[in-house]
Amino acid sequence: MLPSKLKLRSLLAGTLALSLALSSFSVLAAEKVYRLKLAETWGPNTPILGDATKNMAKLAEEMSNGRLKIRIDSANKHKAPLGIFDMVKSGQYDLGHSSSYYWKGKVPNTLYFSSMPFGMISTEQYAWFYRGGGMELMEKVYAPHNLLSFPGGNSDIQMGGWFKKEINSVDDLKGLKIRIPGFAGEVMAKVGAKPTNIAPGELYTSLERGTIDALEWVGPAFDLRMGFQKIAPYYYTAWHEPGSETQFLVNKKKWDSLPKDLQTILETAFRVAAFDMYTQAVDANASSWATMSAQYPDIKVRDFPPEVLKAMKTATTELLEQQASSDLLAKEIIESQRQYLTKVRAWTDISSKAYLDTN
Amino acid sequence: MLPSKLKLRSLLAGTLALSLALSSFSVLAAEKVYRLKLAETWGPNTPILGDATKNMAKLAEEMSNGRLKIRIDSANKHKAPLGIFDMVKSGQYDLGHSSSYYWKGKVPNTLYFSSMPFGMISTEQYAWFYRGGGMELMEKVYAPHNLLSFPGGNSDIQMGGWFKKEINSVDDLKGLKIRIPGFAGEVMAKVGAKPTNIAPGELYTSLERGTIDALEWVGPAFDLRMGFQKIAPYYYTAWHEPGSETQFLVNKKKWDSLPKDLQTILETAFRVAAFDMYTQAVDANASSWATMSAQYPDIKVRDFPPEVLKAMKTATTELLEQQASSDLLAKEIIESQRQYLTKVRAWTDISSKAYLDTN
Repeated sequence: MLPSKLKLRSLLAGTLALSLALSSFSVLAAEKVYRLKLAETWGPNTPILGDATKNMAKLAEEMSNGRLKIRIDSANKHKAPLGIFDMVKSGQYDLGHSSSYYWKGKVPNTLYFSSMPFGMISTEQYAWFYRGGGMELMEKVYAPHNLLSFPGGNSDIQMGGWFKKEINSVDDLKGLKIRIPGFAGEVMAKVGAKPTNIAPGELYTSLERGTIDALEWVGPAFDLRMGFQKIAPYYYTAWHEPGSETQFLVNKKKWDSLPKDLQTILETAFRVAAFDMYTQAVDANASSWATMSAQYPDIKVRDFPPEVLKAMKTATTELLEQQASSDLLAKEIIESQRQYLTKVRAWTDISSKAYLDTN
Repeated sequence: MLPSKLKLRSLLAGTLALSLALSSFSVLAAEKVYRLKLAETWGPNTPILGDATKNMAKLAEEMSNGRLKIRIDSANKHKAPLGIFDMVKSGQYDLGHSSSYYWKGKVPNTLYFSSMPFGMISTEQYAWFYRGGGMELMEKVYAPHNLLSFPGGNSDIQMGGWFKKEINSVDDLKGLKIRIPGFAGEVMAKVGAKPTNIAPGELYTSLERGTIDALEWVGPAFDLRMGFQKIAPYYYTAWHEPGSETQFLVNKKKWDSLPKDLQTILETAFRVAAFDMYTQAVDANASSWATMSAQYPDIKVRDFPPEVLKAMKTATTELLEQQASSDLLAKEIIESQRQYLTKVRAWTDISSKAYLDTN
């Protein structure tokens, strides 16, 4: 005998509720939300650098239809601007945005994935990363640390910095107190300068009072608001960071736990945010240089004289030879970059350089 | 009275089947597969250009977890390499991959979104597209045709072409039979040359037999296999296409029918494929130039003399003034590009150019 209509209805309702609950469970499984935490080296709302992480997070969330949610902690929150490598390695954060050469003291071979003195310009370096073996070498360096690293956006070619006096010879560099950190600082020391490190907030006063004679910062987009042009009229052209690339760091264990489509979405969001940051940096440098050169017509743009460039280049080569001789992977990376640069620069010279020179 | 266990089980089974069917219907609705058809100007398996469409389709499918499926028809299939604009406009195809300046005869203002003589190099032009108002202007040109256009990948700076004789003066251009299509051909005609159009398959023989004295093709990556270096030793540097951008075309009605997340995925796949094509082109040009210059050491790379460049530049400016005076939107685009170029080139000159010149 069949139950009454009422009973059937209530039975069916219960069964439907159960089966809908089951099926929405399976929908939820397919649409599980992955919440990732990203720590960035930069302070909150840092232009260009901070835009790259925001763009990336927004893009990943939109493309995944909300299945990826990325929380961004700036330096004011996590208090460890130079702790990104460790925090992502340990899993305290899933993602990081920083720059590879910051980890040189910890893992020397991370040095080679930001920008090298007398190295490749941005477009050449992207070709090396994606087509010339750079990504594979970067993986070799980061994988042992439970990390993946991806290009994180280029800040465009960096200027050589602001100098109070003109540099006419290598002698003019002897004893010169200059704020220039990292590997470029080692090069400067090798040619006789005295590189120092000074907190960003004290740079202007240090330069004004003569505690330092010169400094490198970034390029017009970041330099303009610092005001160095008011107190150091010589703006030297690039040599030490011809194409500074930032990086997205990923905790590898976390990465492996993501579904394939979300991995692809994340990797793609990294690439677009990186490319977009480069484009934004070119635009911001162009606009800031237009403003700066109009407001401060006395800025003197100078190339270092050939003698000085030659000395710095020799110092760079010697330091790299030293590194190559003490570590096999360093040797492999340095050799890969040297060979790629030789090949790609021959093309750049007859294409972009020739065009810019004749226009 | 409750039905027997057997009966209950069969009743429940039926209800479950019904409700699962209902819920998988809703899952299917969320996971509806959108099949899009893309027509490309290029023949099947064209390197670089054809890789861009394949990369884009693969990326879109992966990121959408199979909800976007894109079929690519090459020119051998649709038989209308220069019919992409019309086929996507009409909805015969949903997507296209081509280059904007091909539509100049149909919609004159499409000319400005590939590359202009004496215009921006690739990185400058990307900054103009994404940060300098270029995308908005492109939309103004394409929207009335039920089309959206996105940058589709850059073939890198193009060489000025292969010449049998050296060009030492404007007089040497008078009567010169040169294969150079489009707007650059108009510029060449204005300075006295005789631009002709010849099918790609007949170019080598025409150059060899003297039917033409010179030709422009692309750059080392595409030129190498054509073999022009064997019969025309002068390889002139760039002037007419300093940063040739291809395009992804989208039927706007189709675009509007896609869910937001798939629109974002598609737009992002366009951007990554475009950027990747640029990187690939840089790498391929570098490798091909290394091969070419090693195998044919007699290739003579030449810049056009300043007098010749000046004449071609004047001709370009006059043609652009003519176009600006006859169409308000043309005027707006030309003015936008001129202003952006002035601003961004001032920065390029003290950054990349200075660096390349001193290295």
